[in-house]
Amino acid sequence: MLPLPTGRFWRAVLLRTCSARLLGHHWASGGPGCRWNPPVGAEELRGELDRFGGVSVRLPRLGALDRLDAASFQRDLQAAVQQWRSEGRIAVWLHIPILQSRFIAPAASLGFRFHHAESDSSTLTLWLGEGPSRLPGYATHQVGVAGAVFDENTRKILVVQDRNKLKNMWKFPGGLSEPGEDIGDTAVREVFEETGIKSEFRSLLSIRQQHTDPRAFGKSDMYIICRLKPHSFTINFCQHECLRCEWMDLNDLVKTENTTPITSRVARLLLYGYREGFDKIDFTVEELPAVYTGLFYKLYHKELPDNYRTMTGMD
Amino acid sequence: MLPLPTGRFWRAVLLRTCSARLLGHHWASGGPGCRWNPPVGAEELRGELDRFGGVSVRLPRLGALDRLDAASFQRDLQAAVQQWRSEGRIAVWLHIPILQSRFIAPAASLGFRFHHAESDSSTLTLWLGEGPSRLPGYATHQVGVAGAVFDENTRKILVVQDRNKLKNMWKFPGGLSEPGEDIGDTAVREVFEETGIKSEFRSLLSIRQQHTDPRAFGKSDMYIICRLKPHSFTINFCQHECLRCEWMDLNDLVKTENTTPITSRVARLLLYGYREGFDKIDFTVEELPAVYTGLFYKLYHKELPDNYRTMTGMD
Repeated sequence: MLPLPTGRFWRAVLLRTCSARLLGHHWASGGPGCRWNPPVGAEELRGELDRFGGVSVRLPRLGALDRLDAASFQRDLQAAVQQWRSEGRIAVWLHIPILQSRFIAPAASLGFRFHHAESDSSTLTLWLGEGPSRLPGYATHQVGVAGAVFDENTRKILVVQDRNKLKNMWKFPGGLSEPGEDIGDTAVREVFEETGIKSEFRSLLSIRQQHTDPRAFGKSDMYIICRLKPHSFTINFCQHECLRCEWMDLNDLVKTENTTPITSRVARLLLYGYREGFDKIDFTVEELPAVYTGLFYKLYHKELPDNYRTMTGMD
Repeated sequence: MLPLPTGRFWRAVLLRTCSARLLGHHWASGGPGCRWNPPVGAEELRGELDRFGGVSVRLPRLGALDRLDAASFQRDLQAAVQQWRSEGRIAVWLHIPILQSRFIAPAASLGFRFHHAESDSSTLTLWLGEGPSRLPGYATHQVGVAGAVFDENTRKILVVQDRNKLKNMWKFPGGLSEPGEDIGDTAVREVFEETGIKSEFRSLLSIRQQHTDPRAFGKSDMYIICRLKPHSFTINFCQHECLRCEWMDLNDLVKTENTTPITSRVARLLLYGYREGFDKIDFTVEELPAVYTGLFYKLYHKELPDNYRTMTGMD
């Protein structure tokens, strides 16, 4: 059992942390070329406190820090950290605009490390609490999605062979999700980009989790295969990405050895669903509002029979 | 359809990029206080080329750059970028150890931006190709896992009420995956940490995808609920995280309004599986070797009946 605060609670900090104010007149003081020599102390860096005992400091993008040199920043930050430690703060979040990155190394020399960075800013953290850091990590997974486009009328399935692979195996077209893109939308977009086939999301069929993937910059990879219904049938595949693209009889895909284990399993799943009902293999989707954040989310699971969906409990 | 290279292919670069060599004698030249004045040109920065037309440069952690000031670095990098552009390179990857972060702002002033950063290093990229960048992004999702621990003998389900929530609703214990941790292992670990109950992974029941989550630092969140079998029954819950923890009759969880929509749906799923067979609601797991990387992965889908698992195709 973990003592407070745990990662999940720390995330709530992000909901509460406003951009911190940097107080102390000399942050903005000093003219061109003047020697800048502030008093040492925590007043130079004042951040927003959060309810978990952390403090968050956001360096301004422009102006105020233009005359501040790295050595002075390090001295002031060290004094501030000592002050926060004496006040019982257990963590520091330091948000640094990319053009102010000269302050990263001085912070690192005091023990700060990158939490994450994206585009034009980085966030560093320093753990002041007891034991190892309990601060939450950043995103750990990339998400790839493939579309198994199956035509029930002809029993044919859309398959491709990638270019630039050591082995040319039949597989389902797919690729990485864009930031903020729903699983089903990725499947439909990637299928169209690779094959020219228009389709519609029907269900989620399988999920693969793999760790320390070099293609994911050493992070984890989640690879999801969806069942799609075709809305067009004329293949116009991307010559850059695909070596071949075909509508293949589902039985042939089940039989072939020239495919990946996951493609073969999903082909068998589809044959099972085709014969005995797709409800036997599908995780279907619904959109729901989140209780705490007010955001909407997509939820995938085995579809409930009507009598279970409407029940209010029974024995 | 996308022209080459696409994000998925770029990932392969990570499999091939060795640490770059920094050539040119004056990178390491100059004694204390000496004025360092190298010739301008691409020779100052030489990276590893990749088969997708990109170049990757890794700045050394120690030594060679100690005497190099930011202005000289910017001048040399600008010359190198001009050279790479003239040679038709379409992207630059710049890997910078945290203690060399004084070189980030000069790179940013030339258009470089953070691709990602973690712990003690950051990676910046500059797109030189036509149109918008087609470089792959970094991890986009955090993964949370909850465990629905159900005792078939008593028809009781393990539920908790979180502390630090606006509404005290019954839900399943769970939390965020550690880096490299399998879904089922996260469920078992979090259940034990929160409730003291030992359990075993049985299946994956539902997946929720949510975007721009403040608790995920604005990234996306994947929340997965697993079915677990209890191996112990005496509750010893974490007072810091939980307000209440109970073994509740499954029918009562189905009936209660004091729960989240997702918990209520999974409760109904479990009741359906309890009465008509868990094979109707489960995505079970198997471990398989990856075709290209040689890594192992976990694959989750509706379990195939034996005759479909063993079939070699038929009509």
